Parts: sequence; C-alpha cells; structure tokens
Amino acid sequence: MQVEAGPLLQQINYPSDLRKLKSTELEKVCDELRQFIIDIVSVNGGHFAASLGVVELTVALHYVLNTPYDQIIFDVGHQAYGHKILTGRREEFHTNRVFGGLSGFPKRGESEYDTFGVGHSSTSISAALGMAVASEYKGETDRQHVAIIGDGALTGGMAFEALNHAGIEKSNLLVILNDNCMSIDPNVGAMKEYLTSITTSKSYNRFRDDLIAVLAKISKNGPDAYGWAKKLEQSIKGTLLKSANLFESLNFRYFGPVDGHDVAKLAKTIEDLKHIPGPKLLHAVTVKGKGYALAEKDQTKWHAPGLFDKITGEIKKSIAEKPQPPKYQDVFGHTLVELAEANDKIMGITPAMPSGSSMNIMMKAMPNRAFDVGIAEQHAVTFSAGLATQGMVPFCNIYSSFMQRAYDQVIHDVALQKLNVVFCLDRAGLVGADGPTHHGAYDIAFMRCIPNLVVSAPMNEEELRNLMYTAQLPDKGPVVIRYPRGNGVMSDWKRPFTEIEIGKGRKIQDGEELAILSFGAIGNEASKAIQLLNQDGIYPAHYDLRFAKPLDEALLHEVFSTFTKVITVEDGSLMGGVGSAVLEFMADHGYNVEVIRLGIADEVVEHGEQVELWKLCGYDAVSIVSAAKRLATSIKTSSMVS
Amino acid sequence: MQVEAGPLLQQINYPSDLRKLKSTELEKVCDELRQFIIDIVSVNGGHFAASLGVVELTVALHYVLNTPYDQIIFDVGHQAYGHKILTGRREEFHTNRVFGGLSGFPKRGESEYDTFGVGHSSTSISAALGMAVASEYKGETDRQHVAIIGDGALTGGMAFEALNHAGIEKSNLLVILNDNCMSIDPNVGAMKEYLTSITTSKSYNRFRDDLIAVLAKISKNGPDAYGWAKKLEQSIKGTLLKSANLFESLNFRYFGPVDGHDVAKLAKTIEDLKHIPGPKLLHAVTVKGKGYALAEKDQTKWHAPGLFDKITGEIKKSIAEKPQPPKYQDVFGHTLVELAEANDKIMGITPAMPSGSSMNIMMKAMPNRAFDVGIAEQHAVTFSAGLATQGMVPFCNIYSSFMQRAYDQVIHDVALQKLNVVFCLDRAGLVGADGPTHHGAYDIAFMRCIPNLVVSAPMNEEELRNLMYTAQLPDKGPVVIRYPRGNGVMSDWKRPFTEIEIGKGRKIQDGEELAILSFGAIGNEASKAIQLLNQDGIYPAHYDLRFAKPLDEALLHEVFSTFTKVITVEDGSLMGGVGSAVLEFMADHGYNVEVIRLGIADEVVEHGEQVELWKLCGYDAVSIVSAAKRLATSIKTSSMVS
Repeated sequence: MQVEAGPLLQQINYPSDLRKLKSTELEKVCDELRQFIIDIVSVNGGHFAASLGVVELTVALHYVLNTPYDQIIFDVGHQAYGHKILTGRREEFHTNRVFGGLSGFPKRGESEYDTFGVGHSSTSISAALGMAVASEYKGETDRQHVAIIGDGALTGGMAFEALNHAGIEKSNLLVILNDNCMSIDPNVGAMKEYLTSITTSKSYNRFRDDLIAVLAKISKNGPDAYGWAKKLEQSIKGTLLKSANLFESLNFRYFGPVDGHDVAKLAKTIEDLKHIPGPKLLHAVTVKGKGYALAEKDQTKWHAPGLFDKITGEIKKSIAEKPQPPKYQDVFGHTLVELAEANDKIMGITPAMPSGSSMNIMMKAMPNRAFDVGIAEQHAVTFSAGLATQGMVPFCNIYSSFMQRAYDQVIHDVALQKLNVVFCLDRAGLVGADGPTHHGAYDIAFMRCIPNLVVSAPMNEEELRNLMYTAQLPDKGPVVIRYPRGNGVMSDWKRPFTEIEIGKGRKIQDGEELAILSFGAIGNEASKAIQLLNQDGIYPAHYDLRFAKPLDEALLHEVFSTFTKVITVEDGSLMGGVGSAVLEFMADHGYNVEVIRLGIADEVVEHGEQVELWKLCGYDAVSIVSAAKRLATSIKTSSMVS
Repeated sequence: MQVEAGPLLQQINYPSDLRKLKSTELEKVCDELRQFIIDIVSVNGGHFAASLGVVELTVALHYVLNTPYDQIIFDVGHQAYGHKILTGRREEFHTNRVFGGLSGFPKRGESEYDTFGVGHSSTSISAALGMAVASEYKGETDRQHVAIIGDGALTGGMAFEALNHAGIEKSNLLVILNDNCMSIDPNVGAMKEYLTSITTSKSYNRFRDDLIAVLAKISKNGPDAYGWAKKLEQSIKGTLLKSANLFESLNFRYFGPVDGHDVAKLAKTIEDLKHIPGPKLLHAVTVKGKGYALAEKDQTKWHAPGLFDKITGEIKKSIAEKPQPPKYQDVFGHTLVELAEANDKIMGITPAMPSGSSMNIMMKAMPNRAFDVGIAEQHAVTFSAGLATQGMVPFCNIYSSFMQRAYDQVIHDVALQKLNVVFCLDRAGLVGADGPTHHGAYDIAFMRCIPNLVVSAPMNEEELRNLMYTAQLPDKGPVVIRYPRGNGVMSDWKRPFTEIEIGKGRKIQDGEELAILSFGAIGNEASKAIQLLNQDGIYPAHYDLRFAKPLDEALLHEVFSTFTKVITVEDGSLMGGVGSAVLEFMADHGYNVEVIRLGIADEVVEHGEQVELWKLCGYDAVSIVSAAKRLATSIKTSSMVS
C-alpha cells in the first residue's frame, strides 16, 4: 500500500535534493521521514524500530557527505529504510520485502547508494575498510567511507578483527557506533556495560578535561607539586590518552558520546570529521524506536511488529479461520524447558536471539541455565563445547544461515571431539521475506560432510519434540536438528516423548511404482501432493527420511528394491543435499532407479513468501505433483544409456 | 628417536611428582624441560619455538594448580609440548606427529590433562568459560580454569566474543595472555601495538601508582587543590580504573605485565590469583624460542624448523636424489607477483600466514598491495569483498581448514554479491602431520553448494598458474582455487599463461571401458595408477575435471556415453564432494554407469605422512589400482537391480 510523504520529503528523490535544503530544515525532514516510515511500515510490515532510531543519522550523513561517491555501509541493514527512502526508492518502498519488490536490506543490485549488501551482523567495518584501502590506493583521498554499526553488532568478533586491522591502516575510515543498547533483544556483554559507563557517569572526555585542569592548577603550587605534575603529564601523554578509551587503545580516534537525535549537531560533527584523517569512531547515543512511544518502550516487540494501527498501536493479528498450529520456535522453547526440568544437565545457549528462537522461555524459567551470549555464534558453539566437556548437554540454538558463522567451531570444537552438543538449527530452508542473506539453504550440504555429526529434521511438532528428547539422552554425540521458520501442522502437539532411533526414517504411506522421500517439514508438501496425485489415480509411497545422516539404509534398500522411480524432496540446496546422499547410497550399492531430486537449485533465491519461493524453486505440492507425473509418463527407461 | 631427560625431569611422570619438589627446584626443572624439548625436536621435528617460550608458564601452572581437576586450556596448542612431557607422555614423546603416535596438539582422547582439543586459534577462552560456568553450576567453587592465549590468537574475533561474554559471568576464569608479539609470523594489528605500549613505556600499573601518589601530595596543598583532588579521585574511581585498560573495560581484572620467564614469580602470582574470584587476565611477557639463541633471533624460521643440529643450529635439508619440484605455495607466491605486475588491480590478503602461504613474496615486492590482517579469517574475506566492490581483484589466500572460519563471509559477503574475489585455498586435502584439525577435508562439499562460486583445483603447477591467471581476468566472479600442501610435480613450471575456460576439464589419456575422473593434484596418483594398470593390460582413460563447479557437462556426456565404469578420485570428503557432483549429473541426465568414488570416508582422519593417509583412505595409486581391478572383475552388471 502506498502512503503519502510530507511536503519536504516529497521533493527529495535523491540526496542531491536533500543537500539543496538549509540546515535549519533538516529537523523537519527528519520528522517527515520518521512519519513516512511509521505510515508505511504500519500498513505493509517490515523492520521498524531500528530505522526510527537512525533517522537523524541517516539525514545528516546524506546531507553532509557526497553520496554515492562517498560510501555509507550499514551494518545488518534493519535500519536502512530511511536511507532507501532518501535514495530514489520512496515511491516503490511499499513493495519492501514483497516478492519481486525491494529488499528489506541494502543490496548492491538495487541501488548504487547501497554500497554493500548486508543482512548478517558485524560485517560493515571490514567492508568499509576494504573500500577505504582501495580509495587510498587509487589516490581518492577526498573520499569518505562510513560504517554504521550498532553496539549489538559490535559484539560479533569479526567487528573486532576489523578494528584491529583498521587501527594500523592510515586510510580514511569513520565508524559510527549507533549505541542504543539493543540487538533485536537487549544487548548483552561486557562491552555494553563499558559503553554505558562511558556514556553515563563521568565521561572519558570530561575526565580528560578535569585532568588537564588539575594539572594546570597543580603547576601553580610550587616546585614540588610541579615535579609530580610533569611526571603525571608524561604518563598521560604516554599511556593514558591511548589506553583510557577502548577504541583509542585500538588506534581509533574516539569522538563522543553525542546525541544521535540532534540532527544539526550530527551534521556539524560529521562535517568536522571529514577533515580528520585515519581511523576514527563517533559514538552516537540513540533510542531504538525513537519518535514512536510504544516502540521506545518495548523495543524487542517493535523490532518487526507486523501490521499495526499507527494511532492506537494495536498490532494486527493475522485472522485465521481456525486456530493455527504453534510455531516450531515455540514448540522448541517449551519442549526445552520440559526436558530441562527432567534432565539437570541441559543448558540453553542463544547468540542474541532469545525472542526469535524462543530461548527466552528457558531464560525466564531457568536463568542460571540459559545464556544469551551476544551476537557471537562462534563463541556460542565453543562455549557449548566447553560445557559439554563437563558433562552438560547444551542445546545451542542458531539460525541456519547464522550457523555459517560458526562452521569451523562445529567441526573443530564439537564434531572432531564428538561432544554432546545439540544444535537446533532454526529457520532452516527458505525463510521468506528476509531473503537471500537469511535463507537456510546450505546447512544440509555443509553439515552432512562433517564426521561424527547426526543431521536430522522433523516433519512436524511431535517429531521435533522427539528428536530433542532423543538428542539429550546419553552419548548421542553431536546432533543437528533443523526446522523451519513458521507454523507447524499439529494442533495437539504436546504428546509424551518417544525416543527415535538415530538414523531411522519412517514410512508414512505405502504406494506403487513411485516413492517420494522427503526430509523435514517440507514433507508436508509431499503429503499434499500425494493427496492430489491420488485423485488422478497415482499412488506414490511416502517416506520421511528424518536423518540426512546417518541414512536409514534398511529403508533405502526397501525403497530401491520396491520402486522404479523415486523423488527426493528437501528444503535446501540440491548440490550435496539429501538427494545427493540418496544418490551416493544408490551408487555405493549398485542400484539403478530413476531419481528426480527436488530442492533449491544452484541459484540465489530472492525474497518472498515461503510458499511463493517453494513454488519458484519447484518443490511446493503442485511442483511435486508435476514431477511425479513427469516420471509417470516418462518414456525414458532407467537403463536407457547403459 | 628417544632422548634422555635430565635427572629431575626423569622423576616427573605426572604433575603430582612435580608438586613434590621445592619451589627452588623449579628453575632447574625448567632448564631440563627446555633442554629435553630442544633435544627431541631437533631429531624428530615438530613445532619448536612456541613451546620454548612457555616452559616457565607450563611448569608454574602444573606446580600450583591441581591438574587435571583444575583445567588448563592451551590456545592453538603449538606450545603444549612441555605440558605433554609433564603429563605422562615424556617416554612416548618421540612419536609426536608420527602416524599412530602422539598428536602435535592437545587432544582429549590422548590424556585427561588435555582438557580441550585445539589446533585452530582463538578458541581457548570460549572453551574455558564453558568449563568454568559448568563448574559454577555444579558448585565446584574451588576449581580453576585457565586459558593460555597468545597475543596473536587474541586477534581472532571469537576470542573477543568470549571476553565480552566472560566479563558478565561471575565464574572463575583466568586468562593468561602469552604476549610474545608473534603469531607464526610477527603479530600485526592495533591490539599488538596496544600491548606493546602498556608493556614498554610507562605501564598502566605504574601510572596508577603515580596518580595515587600525586593525589596524596595534592591533598596536602590546601583546600583549593583538595577540591580538585576529590574530583579527580571520583573520576578515577568512576571511569578511569575501569576504562584505562582495555581488559578492565571488559570487566576483567588485569594483572601484569609480568616476566613470563621468572618461574618462581609466576608460581606465586598464579597462587595469588587462585583466590581472586571472577574473570581475570594475567599479562605475561615471553620470548618465543626462549633459551635457544637462534630461535629467539628468527622466530618465524624456528616456529617449526624441521630437523636440525642442536649444537650448530644447522637446519637439515631433506636429501633428494634429484632437484625437487617447487612447493605449490611458492608457485602461488611468485605467480601472484607476476600477475600483479601486469594487473594493477590485484591485491593480496593473508590472515597471519605470510610465510606459510608465501604471500610474504608479494608483501615484500609490493608492500602497499599485500596485507597481513592478523589471525582474522572472517575479516580477511569481507575486507577482500570491500576491495572487490571498488574494482580491485583481491587474492585472498586462506588454508582450507581455516576457511571454515570464514564460511559465512564467503557466502554472505562475496558469493551472494558475485564479487570478484579469488580464494586460494592452500593446504586443501589431507595435510599430513598436523592431523584432523588441519586437514582440508571438507571444502569441496562446503563450497560446492554456494551459488555463483567457481570451485577449481589444479593438477600441477602449470595448471595452478593458469587458474590464477584466469581468475584475475575481468568478470570471472568469485573463484576458488584449491591446492595441496607440499611439492608439485613439474620442474619447468614457469611457463607462459594460458586462459582456462571456466568449467572446462581436460582429457589426459584415452582408454577403454573404464574412465578415471580426478580433481586436483591427487590426479597424479591416478596417473601413477594408470601406469601400473597398463602393465596388467588394463587401459583406463583419465580425465582431469579441473572444476567441481561448474562441471564440464560436455566432458561428462562424453565419459558416460563412452565408458561403462567410472572411478572418481578426490582429496576430500566423499559426502557431497566431486564424486557426488558426478552422481548428480548422472541422475539428472538419466545415465546409468557403475561408479566407484574414492576420497575421504565419513570419518576423522588422524595424522601421518600424506602418502600414508592417502593409502589409509584408499586413494593412493595402489588403492586406485585395486578399485580399478575390482571394477574390471565385477560380476555385477550396471543394471543388476533395475
């Protein structure tokens, strides 16, 4: 749905238009931009509070800098709506996150103002440094490079790696620390406490001023005190000024803290900083959700609230005819507590996703046994490994696409040592509107090649519960349980636990000639397809593989001895996925059966509703039906070429 | 080869024996331990300088702590030889890094004193924190947990993630910073400079002492100065003590710097620290190679020097009958400079492996175009992505097993954006004596599933050069070139460049009935196998696939139309590897041919010589011969089951 922009904003199609305004008009631009974001997100959905928090920063940056020649890199990108609206995309912003529409994140293909595609956290300083070093090499000494990173994103280790490197390069880099004490959930960790301490209480800058004043004072008090003052001054020059601030310790010049909602002051500060060479950090204090009272008050809820009444603040529930099955996330959260009540070795770990993963249920119920470790997937996995060495059974819940961040730790710290860590891979498969950066497309392939690892996926809520139950029993070794974003399929999901034999699939339905082998919740599309095929007199069998590794060899022998045509269905990459595992089994055992593998082809899948994307990729129910009919009418025989 | 231990060391089989000694005897123990390391490494090889640098730390820790109840976690583990020798493994230490012998790294299966398996950098704080949190949960409040981490390893982002989390936990954790200014090569980055600044010049502690003294002084100087002093004191208490040291900023209590070679002082300090609760950091300054003058002088060379004459320091060259072909590493290094001389867009990036990867050749020749970014694989990749957005062509050289650390960055920052980064995956395949943590076993599988990525492997030096040449041509998109550790096969490798068509394999040899498809340098084992098979009247064809992705479809159509039996050979995991790619092609095109895939089975491969391991895994020349004969005499027909 389109919404109307305020009178000033209507004139701003590009930052060049913004720069024609007087600086006194910027506050009004901010008001209109904020209102536009409220208007459009309330009726179209999307990320909300983060963009409200950086309205002034966004306007100030585009006003002062010569974008797109000067380069702005947003970290994560939840906060870039204002940026998109000011850079040629206001009129199409209502297509945000819709299939075929604008991406919810900065994206290079979408605009030259989007200098770097983001979605995952903590990449901006590395990318900006790369740009800055290139500019320096090319002699573009006037060019500005600005990374805008939240205090949450700063907990990700690669941000620190980048600071460490940037501190010894001479290139022109400005890091703006958008300090709002939040990730999606409240930010955690020692760094957050440090930032709070330098922002509140006595600030570093004020301390430095005091110190200089007292030195002046002392030096008037005679030779004895003067000697001390000199000594002190040497200390200050030598060590203190360098080390008294964490960022200055890393060779960054530190400026701030400044009020991130004072647009005039921000513009002036950024203008000043343009002329200071080398690495520098501007610490801006902002309020996530700024300007929308409810969002300021409950920032997690308003991170991405869905549709809402902008006047009353009432969040609109999607209206369903009958009660919906629960989200897999909630099944995970409640089941974990249930298991942990019975098994005192269980602990819960999330890297900054308490609400998204529903780990917050355990964090509330058992605060000493559930940990939010910050945006720190690598640490989350190795911390879990450390716990496991002491006999604990950590449930480490990480979104599939974020698990890419901790891949080495899964191999090196958990699998090689065969430690009892349970990895719950949330949002596995295509996630929908968040798009390419967030699709959990690769985990089957990248997990399946790791020795000692069990790779499983539940087809429904009961299976999820039983896999979780099984994984926490003694000596199951590291187990991966992947499940999708969104609702399950059962209304009565809370059933007693049953152990599932590791590596044991199940037959869902007998059939003739054709067998469909599915892995995980996408199997429900296969079930729908079979109902449709039955209407046409085609009766495929249906097997739920449950385990990509170890494979159920008995089941596969049965399948390949019984059926001449096989379809595999997975919500993941076809290159090296479950279908490939099935082909490996066939080759190793000399079977020769016609196989169609359905899953994600070797392409980047864009954003859209999950069902739209399944269709696009050819593994929704209708596509499975087509594949089955293709096989049924195939004139090829399976020995065509031999 | 066994060597004899000194008289005191001979009595120490376990730390309990060490603890029976008087503290005045520790220095002698250190001398003997150091001598034992020199004696045994000089005749058996292995990592050298790192262990010499922590002799006193190792002795002090095992003397003061109640190991293995108290837990010591070494980071990386190059430095753990002294630890192994003191913990029950002195007599078998001559088997270090030998097939079937001790591992060169701490390993849980080897000893209860090895609390956590290591090999990759920067994991120790996360693991130790996991252990400490578990101990706290279990009420083992007396238990000590010590992570020993180098200043090099501290540049890895996950170490920072762990510090950030540890700073808000109350559990009993001691981090010992082993500050020797080195990784394998000299350490780089702002953190290193910071550590040097607090170690040399005026130290933080001395500064704090001065400040307190001056406050006392001022307060005697009348009411005016007294007011200032009070104000200053408040500042100090409020902010300075917290923020004036980077580690204290992160809620760690900081102690040091101390002399890491004063064993008595170290023992006393560690004893004192046992009684201080919460997270704390001891900054110990050590010299890598301490006690062996040549190693102190050239620490990179003596990191792992091979065999040497301990008296003269002469490093023994392996005696070969004829001149050896060059290492792939050197071919990479020289070729990169050659290409960069012709193409001014090329840049070189290494995460702390200048000498190991031979990136040091470009760093010397073109210091403004080649970057050592520290132990920071994630940053290395995204920094490269940033460079690529500006039209640069970065050659980002990362060992295959370390690339696991930057997996998300390859997907999220490079592949999704189709940026022109060339990834040179050094030490791909089985690496030899470094063992499981370092084997580059999984990269084919984990890279092959990523869209937009070209995955290639050269069979020899000329192919490596041509793939590098090809990859830097315009618009080749991201390209992976994987090559193994060690020597190539050509004496005259420096030939003119030829472009290789992306996705184009090559036929090496015609043949009958059986085709061998190899990927990468392991193809040379296939060539040897074919020579042996020819002697028995079997004439397989040989194809070098060159690309795991995109596959050479024309070549594969030729193969599957011509041959009834196929063997694939790869130096990598069979689960999802090149062999699986070939099976996917077969299934997609309805071919039905008997295929044996040779590569690494779904198991952890231990350490040993590369040829030993190839044999163990069944893909050395002799194993390929066996597989070919198995196929030749197979009574199965390819349509057995259909």
